[in-house]
Order: sequence, then structure tokens, then C-alpha cells
Amino acid sequence: MIRTIDWVDDEIHLIDQTRLPDELVVLRINELGVLIDAIVRLAVRGAPALGVAGALGVALLATRLPDEGAVRDGAARLRAARPTAVNLAWGTDRALARLGDGPGAVLAEALAIRDEDIASCAAIAVRGADLAQALVREATGRATVRVMTICNTGALAAVERGTALGVVGELHARGVLEEVLPLETRPLLQGARLTAWELTQMRAPFRLLPDGAAASVLARGLADIVFIGADRVAANGDTANKIGSFSLALGARYAGVPLLVIAPESTVDLGTATGAGIEIEERAADEVTSIRGVRIAPAGTRTLNPAFDVTPASLITAIVTDRRVIRTDRGGRPSDPLPA
Amino acid sequence: MIRTIDWVDDEIHLIDQTRLPDELVVLRINELGVLIDAIVRLAVRGAPALGVAGALGVALLATRLPDEGAVRDGAARLRAARPTAVNLAWGTDRALARLGDGPGAVLAEALAIRDEDIASCAAIAVRGADLAQALVREATGRATVRVMTICNTGALAAVERGTALGVVGELHARGVLEEVLPLETRPLLQGARLTAWELTQMRAPFRLLPDGAAASVLARGLADIVFIGADRVAANGDTANKIGSFSLALGARYAGVPLLVIAPESTVDLGTATGAGIEIEERAADEVTSIRGVRIAPAGTRTLNPAFDVTPASLITAIVTDRRVIRTDRGGRPSDPLPA
Repeated sequence: MIRTIDWVDDEIHLIDQTRLPDELVVLRINELGVLIDAIVRLAVRGAPALGVAGALGVALLATRLPDEGAVRDGAARLRAARPTAVNLAWGTDRALARLGDGPGAVLAEALAIRDEDIASCAAIAVRGADLAQALVREATGRATVRVMTICNTGALAAVERGTALGVVGELHARGVLEEVLPLETRPLLQGARLTAWELTQMRAPFRLLPDGAAASVLARGLADIVFIGADRVAANGDTANKIGSFSLALGARYAGVPLLVIAPESTVDLGTATGAGIEIEERAADEVTSIRGVRIAPAGTRTLNPAFDVTPASLITAIVTDRRVIRTDRGGRPSDPLPA
Repeated sequence: MIRTIDWVDDEIHLIDQTRLPDELVVLRINELGVLIDAIVRLAVRGAPALGVAGALGVALLATRLPDEGAVRDGAARLRAARPTAVNLAWGTDRALARLGDGPGAVLAEALAIRDEDIASCAAIAVRGADLAQALVREATGRATVRVMTICNTGALAAVERGTALGVVGELHARGVLEEVLPLETRPLLQGARLTAWELTQMRAPFRLLPDGAAASVLARGLADIVFIGADRVAANGDTANKIGSFSLALGARYAGVPLLVIAPESTVDLGTATGAGIEIEERAADEVTSIRGVRIAPAGTRTLNPAFDVTPASLITAIVTDRRVIRTDRGGRPSDPLPA
């Protein structure tokens, strides 16, 4: 398995996601400028992957530059490559904090971040698959599972496996995955471009569908469970995720299909009491008015292009993290104490 | 004003909607095969326009073929070009019923259908705008109206003006249209390509949005009312319309926003008791996997691509036709007697 991002032969290797699904290109990066460019043009994306990119970028600098000041200057440029990506700054800072102990310590910290992400996704996969199988068996008596999901929450957003799509992979490995129904996820089509590619790689049976079809496909009984990722989970369980998630949750509720939020514990933000406190980023019009460079709307068209929406906890069956399952449907909340 | 579809110089003229918004191309059709192809590839679409297309198609046959049997065979092929489109069958059958009176009678019937559609859209526009203003005033106290809508239900779906978008045009003419929020309407992007083009032509203020954003935009209070068209309305009020309509209706209900189905009375099919009796047309994968010729998903990707969904009457506030307003929210049903 090719990791989305890794440290190989003293270089950073990462899959160039802008070339997918047309071709699989692995960038071999040994210069800071190339890494920053890859981050800016979204060749690497997804919160966990960006955390690893930041840390490995500092390792790249520390193992090449003799001067601590030069490493710090480079790390500052790296950190600013995507100012809103909290994980990029987090990974950069965590590796940089070891600089006083020498380049070996910086690299060891970066590799630890990579390995922690792998372990986190592995824990999520097992816990999520266990819960999904139990919920589907309980609701329908079925031993196999048909999953609807949105956006890309797979290996391409992490180092290996991913979060919600990592659970899909685990179900497939267990031989109980009947079908996946990924939403294409307009405007940026992460479902069509990235999730469909990952499902093809893992030889999982799937059918891609337009976002607007999700609710009616659920009402027709074609999926047993819905998985979504999370960008931020508030203390009460309200969950900000890719635009379309709230609509999908309404469809799941109407159809009586359980919905799981699947994300690392680090996504839980106890400083945000409810979804009302989450600011919704509005993105550029050309994401809506053109698709992969092809114009689809009249010149001058204005848009509403919110990057995220907020799904209220009342529409969520459970939140699955690397540490625990929070049964929001039974009154559980992220603000409950973590298990020992 | 160019009519969407018309009979000119013994030919059918129709705007090729697959070329919009880039260019305005009028097809001149004098062969059945070309008309069927235009219907299948959605160069002409929309329930009223398809009714006129069916009738004019029979006129095309009747004025060219000496043999009644050949006309009937051609009409049967035409009728089957889009199985879910009740208006296509209706227009075809109505013109065909005059075949015994000669080609002149068939053509006269087809032209009558065209003229009735123009009159029908005019009646719908006034009745729909009256109701929308009253509902919004009652619910919010607002004198101006912000409308969310899906697909294209404008002049391009009829001969002139259109149905749901005709009501938008009427509100604009009355000076009370604050903003329109058209959904882009994947997979074929009728909202982005056609509705945005019509709104630009009528100089109405609008912002285009991805389908997945509709429910959250409604929940944020950014629209006062939702308008959808209809491909078929069952006797109990269940309504088949463009894929995404049901999802939009769930969003409207969650937000407490009224939803109007706006369609000609000919869309009502009393022979269909409920939505459960409506067959959902499944369309080709390439509509989802590529957009305007650009591939967006891996080769070999399978899809779920239902053309329509069914919105249950319980999610509909009222159905507005050229003959009446059916208050489904107050127990009214299409099977109720028509007003005198």
C-alpha cells in the first residue's frame, strides 16, 4: 500500500491528489519550496495528512540545514502555506519544539506524528466497523452492510486508511461490505475524484451518486447506514462537516437509517459549546460556476458557496473516535469524560 | 422573444438547451429521429415543452406520411422517448386522437396545445405569485420574497414564461422579488446552465448554490419559500420531480419554509394513486462521471443516477396549477373536483 504521505530515503513522498483520478503520481520532495507549493495547490489535503506534512517538512529542513535560524525561518514559511489549516501549524510546531535536541529528535517526532495517525485510524476502523455491524444487524437483521458516505475521509486525507472511509475499508476486509454509495460532493467533487478512486483501489463495490439523490436513495431503502467525517465536533455533539452533510442527515433521519460521525478525538472542540458557535467559511464563486476548468454557468453568476454545514446532534446516532463511541442517540455528549 | 419550441415553416423549431449558457442555438427539425434524439439528450426538456414536442412531433409525421399506420408507429416511438414524462405521452396522444380528421386537424390540435400552454403559464404565474406573497406575508410579515428553486422550470421548460420560474418572473415584474437561490441541479446542471441564464436575461438578483447546500441555507433563514415544478402529480398529491426535489422538501420542512409545487393541471395524473406507483427513470453513468465532456471520476465508475424522486404530499404546502390551488397542507388533494 502506498501511503498518502511518508518519509522514504530522507525525502517526503506524497501522492499528488490534483492528478487523481486520472493518474497516480508520487511526488518526491527534498526542497521546502516544492512542499509548500504542494500544500498550496492541494496536492496534499485533509487535516491529518497536513499535520504530518508540517512535521515532515520541519524534519526535511532540520536534516539538511546546519543553522537553527534557517530551520525556524523555513518552518515559519511552511506554517503559513495554508493559514486556516490548524493541523499544519500543529504538526509544524510539534516537530520544531524538538529542534534543540538535534535533527534526529525532530525527525523522530515527525515520524511519531505519522505513526500516531496510523494508529488512530486503525483504532477508528475497528471501533466503527464493530458499531456499524451491530447497528445494522439490530435495525435490519442484515449481516452485510450498505454504506452511504460523503466527501473524502479515506487514506488520502490521512497517512493510511482514513476515518469514515477507513471504517468502510475495515468492513470490506471483514467480508461484510455489500456496497458503498459515495456522494460526489459538489463543489469540489472529492467523492467523485478521490473516494471513488480509493474504492476502486480497494476493489470495493460502489455506485457514485449526485448529492441531491442521497435522500431519495435512502428513502428507497438502498443503504443501511450513513458515515460522515467531521471538521469540528462541538461539546454538545453538533458537527461541522463538508457542505451536504446536514442534508444527508435529514435524509437518513426520514428513512430511519443510522448516521455515524467518524473522526479522530482531536476533532472534538470542547471550547465550542454548540454548532451555533461554528463560523461557516464562504468560498469563491468559481468553485461553483466552473468544474475542472469548464464553465457551467453564465459569466458574472454570483454564488452561495459555504464550505461546511452543521449537523445537529439530534440527527446523529453516534460519534466514533479513536478513543470512544459517543451514543448521541442515548444522550451521550462529547463533553462526557473520556474513558480511562 | 424566441419561443422555446414552436412550429415555423412546417418544421419544429426548438432551442437546443444543451448548448446554453454558452450559445443560443435553434434546431430546425423535420424528421422524427432528430426530434426523438433531441428529447433523449434533453435538448428539449420540461413537462410543458415536452407536451408540445409530442404534439408537434405527431403533426410532423401526419403532415409528411400518407399512411396512418406509419404515423401511429412513429407516435409510439416518440411517446416512449422518456417514460416518466407524462406530458410527452399526453401531448402525443392528444394530437394523435385527431388523426382520423386528417393532417390539418392534427396540426391544429398541436398548435392549440402550444397556445394553451402559453395561456396556462400566464395563469400559473398570477395565481402562484398571489399565493407566494400571501404565504410569505403570513409567515414572516415580509413584503418581499426570497425564493429557492431547483432545476429549470422557466420559459425553457415551456413555450413561454414557464411554471415555477414563471412565478418568479411574475414576482419580479411586481417588484417584490428580493432574491432567487437556484440550485445547480446535478447531474445535468439545469439550474446552473438554464435557470441562471434565464434569471440573467430577466435581470433578477440571484445566487447559485450547490444542491447539497440547500437544506443548510434554508436552516440559516436565507429563503422565505421554495418552488418546485413537477413531472407527475399523483392523485394524493405525491409529486415526481427532478432528482433533489425530495431532499429540498426535507430541508424546507426542517426550516419551516413553505414549499409550492407549480405545474400545469395536465401534470396531474389521477390514474396514479400515490407516488409509489411512479416508475423512476435511471439514466446513464456518464451524466455523473463527466461534466460537459470532462471526466471527474475514475474510469469504470458505476453510478446511481435516478432522473427523478418523489416528494410526498405531506411535505408540500400547496400545488398551484393553471386551474386551481390545491392546499395539500389543509387536506386538499388533486383528486378533489376541479373548480367550475
